[in-house]
Amino acid sequence: MRRGVIHEILFDAAWNHGQAELVSEEVRMAYAQAWERTVKAARAMRRIGIGRGDVIGILDVNSHQAFELQYAASLLGAIAHPLNFRLPAEHLVHTVRQGRDVILFANGAMAPLAEVLRPLVRHVVWLGETQSGQDDPASGHADFLYEDLLSNEEAGSTPEASVTDTDPYSLLHTTGTTGRPKAMRYRHRDIVQAPLQIAHHLALHETGAKLGTSDVVMPLIPFFHIHAWGVPIFAPYLGLKLVLPGKATPLEQVRLVHSEGVTWSNMVPTQLLMLLDAMRSHGETSVTLKVLTGGSQLPMGLASRAYEAGIRYSLIYGGSDQLGAAISVSSHTAGSRENLEALSSRLNPIPMVRVSVRGDDGRELPADSQSTGELWVESPWLPHGYLEDEMTTERTYVDGWFRTGDLAVMHPDGTFSVVDRVKDAIKSGGEWIIPSVLEAILSEIPEVRMAAVIGRPDERWGERPIAIIAADERVDKAKVETHLAKAVADGRLARFWLPDAIHWLRELPLTSAGKIDKVALRSAFLGAQGTGA
Amino acid sequence: MRRGVIHEILFDAAWNHGQAELVSEEVRMAYAQAWERTVKAARAMRRIGIGRGDVIGILDVNSHQAFELQYAASLLGAIAHPLNFRLPAEHLVHTVRQGRDVILFANGAMAPLAEVLRPLVRHVVWLGETQSGQDDPASGHADFLYEDLLSNEEAGSTPEASVTDTDPYSLLHTTGTTGRPKAMRYRHRDIVQAPLQIAHHLALHETGAKLGTSDVVMPLIPFFHIHAWGVPIFAPYLGLKLVLPGKATPLEQVRLVHSEGVTWSNMVPTQLLMLLDAMRSHGETSVTLKVLTGGSQLPMGLASRAYEAGIRYSLIYGGSDQLGAAISVSSHTAGSRENLEALSSRLNPIPMVRVSVRGDDGRELPADSQSTGELWVESPWLPHGYLEDEMTTERTYVDGWFRTGDLAVMHPDGTFSVVDRVKDAIKSGGEWIIPSVLEAILSEIPEVRMAAVIGRPDERWGERPIAIIAADERVDKAKVETHLAKAVADGRLARFWLPDAIHWLRELPLTSAGKIDKVALRSAFLGAQGTGA
Repeated sequence: MRRGVIHEILFDAAWNHGQAELVSEEVRMAYAQAWERTVKAARAMRRIGIGRGDVIGILDVNSHQAFELQYAASLLGAIAHPLNFRLPAEHLVHTVRQGRDVILFANGAMAPLAEVLRPLVRHVVWLGETQSGQDDPASGHADFLYEDLLSNEEAGSTPEASVTDTDPYSLLHTTGTTGRPKAMRYRHRDIVQAPLQIAHHLALHETGAKLGTSDVVMPLIPFFHIHAWGVPIFAPYLGLKLVLPGKATPLEQVRLVHSEGVTWSNMVPTQLLMLLDAMRSHGETSVTLKVLTGGSQLPMGLASRAYEAGIRYSLIYGGSDQLGAAISVSSHTAGSRENLEALSSRLNPIPMVRVSVRGDDGRELPADSQSTGELWVESPWLPHGYLEDEMTTERTYVDGWFRTGDLAVMHPDGTFSVVDRVKDAIKSGGEWIIPSVLEAILSEIPEVRMAAVIGRPDERWGERPIAIIAADERVDKAKVETHLAKAVADGRLARFWLPDAIHWLRELPLTSAGKIDKVALRSAFLGAQGTGA
Repeated sequence: MRRGVIHEILFDAAWNHGQAELVSEEVRMAYAQAWERTVKAARAMRRIGIGRGDVIGILDVNSHQAFELQYAASLLGAIAHPLNFRLPAEHLVHTVRQGRDVILFANGAMAPLAEVLRPLVRHVVWLGETQSGQDDPASGHADFLYEDLLSNEEAGSTPEASVTDTDPYSLLHTTGTTGRPKAMRYRHRDIVQAPLQIAHHLALHETGAKLGTSDVVMPLIPFFHIHAWGVPIFAPYLGLKLVLPGKATPLEQVRLVHSEGVTWSNMVPTQLLMLLDAMRSHGETSVTLKVLTGGSQLPMGLASRAYEAGIRYSLIYGGSDQLGAAISVSSHTAGSRENLEALSSRLNPIPMVRVSVRGDDGRELPADSQSTGELWVESPWLPHGYLEDEMTTERTYVDGWFRTGDLAVMHPDGTFSVVDRVKDAIKSGGEWIIPSVLEAILSEIPEVRMAAVIGRPDERWGERPIAIIAADERVDKAKVETHLAKAVADGRLARFWLPDAIHWLRELPLTSAGKIDKVALRSAFLGAQGTGA
């Protein structure tokens, strides 16, 4: 009897696509073998007392072991909890404490972080090939070695808890830019359906990140960000060769594309930039790759550069609190500026998802590409709320819909464009100023690597925009002002949108998810009075 | 809150693809309008006392009204029961009686059949534009006119029963070749998932019947055959223009392909033959069309002829008792004989489906393209058994698997080939003779339109094959024997497979599903002693 639970995906892959490969640093195995190891991992966990409902913390890069553990959790009816090792230690401790993780699987190279978490869990199991620099497991520093646990298991019956598709499967923490990470719980059916529908959407449409059954995929999005946007689920589902990059540097990622025949990857714009920079610094000019990107605005300069290097891409819209919602479908084969812009901004709802742009009164706004309101999303895989945060849940999940907190416009053809975060938008004299538009125009200046616009409290107007630009060298302020003035003359900017001040930094602060940390910028440029925005 | 029920598909289409067209004879409307009419149909039915769990009989060709009614049933939590008007009246009565249908929606042109069914139902509602030849509804012959019911409804709230995806949605009768039709019940999730996975499979693979978001689809498979293999579900899901052929003749179907820009259709091989014959008799040599075909063997002669006319196709494997299970994925761009043969025989399981070829002892046979056994299928949308037939259910649905009763071989690459029905296979001297192989070779003779091979009881060998060929004129027996002798010499046939007798008919008897009626052939050529086989 099929139950629509996570581990059926890998079992089916072993059955239907047993010879398709999983590559993870030095390790190379077939899905049939990955399934065998997963069964052993589940049996070993059960042997040390892990069972139904227990939360399993996984502190690792994208490795085959982290992949196996996510499926082994399903077999036991346990909860997979991929941990964000980029969080400040204090926040990481919060996530493990809030998750009530009972066991921690940790990459040996992350031993210092793991030691911080040790008091919170019953067992620590070390992943990775080497434990150099670690004390002897027998001394108490490590309870188990993962590979030892597996070696001790003989082939045998599969420990299959009678989980159903509405049972909880995983726990993930958001990486919000304000306050501590919030926890979301997902059911089996959520993490089965959302990744599969992403894959189906990418197969059905002519689009940059199109997927077919002959693709080779390499997720650069870490597992702890919404299960790497679903790749570890849909790769075995489609029988695709899966390349897990481990701790590969951007240059090594490019090498993997060539050596393993990778055709498809996912990454945030920052990673895309790093990849292109790594290529440039080694004299490589092109790489043939389909890329699904998202998580933050894709600056037009970066989009053009990627396009010229041979990268075809689509933009995904979603997040931990709604999973995947929409993907741009323009084919941008022509590569004209208009095509790239459409691709970067016009999003097409994934099948089964409904989107709605609503005014402050909750009423739907016309689909006229003009009326700006908050984007609401409804889908079969919406989580039901934040763990232990009823207030935010009630405010955010309304009548079965998720209020995204993003400002958007609907187009007449059913696509939509996100213009900015509601809380990042600036209200000046009663009118909206959309920082992302200003940021995109600032990014067109060749020297400007990144730009951020934030609202500064203003006695007369309520708020006024100020800009912070990142560049290797200080940029001539007159040059910036000329560029903005031209944008006003061309009708691309309203005059009252012009920033009151322009600041320069070598680097903009980023969150662990690679987004510009506007909280940090507000704190730095506006002082305490700005941080509550 | 999304519940994964049938009517959400059409609601989403109205929401996301509101302008996509539905064409049905003279009627042309957008999905948004079809949704409005569906809501009205549900409200009207509720008004006359139809509600949750009631079975709704639909006796119609593929029309927009039959389409609407299938969605309206979902809105009410009622059960859609598309009726097979090609069945003998006695069998049709059985299906309505067994279904306990409470209301009958009937095409005016099918009035004689509807009158036979009238005593079994509470209400009769007439579909279609005209009621010519019918008595006045007021006289008692007709309770309602469908369009009147809709006109009387004003726009208003949607009557949405709180159905969930595990509630029953539809009832269909198989068209078995032995005995009376058997009834299957499907849940909402079955009829949501199976059609969507068919569409996803066709989008993910390079294959003849590939689907994309710009296709225009015309189902020639009637709704009463497994919901037209899912087209009325996946067309709105993908926002595809849907052309419903009504009672169009094969020639009119070709005209619709041209006039409506149809790019994709489904049909059994017999319909494909009729379509090509209609083209030939009107001097048309080519039509560009992607076709999903199945339901019976596709003779190589027909496959070649279709290919030369510009038709690209894939073969689907499934049935009422298992829904869709597999689709061939060869792209056959080359059109060589080998490619066409692979396409006609090598089936690739639809994602989420597992197949297994097993010996008489239930043990799995090796995937060596040689070992022949019974095909077992497991999928998330398997029905749970036959209505009111526990014995057949127990024999057929075993440990969550469906025993197909088909003989098949597994290939090393995970595809499989169906060689024949278990019950049609002939055992001669302890060895299998596969009628379909013989039939395919006989069909290569230019004059032979169709061929059937059945087993004749034989004292010495147990069974021996005899062949019945259909041709316009009597075919020279020596010519047939020469062709078969060459096939033996070429190693395509074992000598002991040569039929003991060859009979000629102008037409072979067909079942209502368009398959060769071997029960009728056995009865005609073997007499009473052969019919129990």
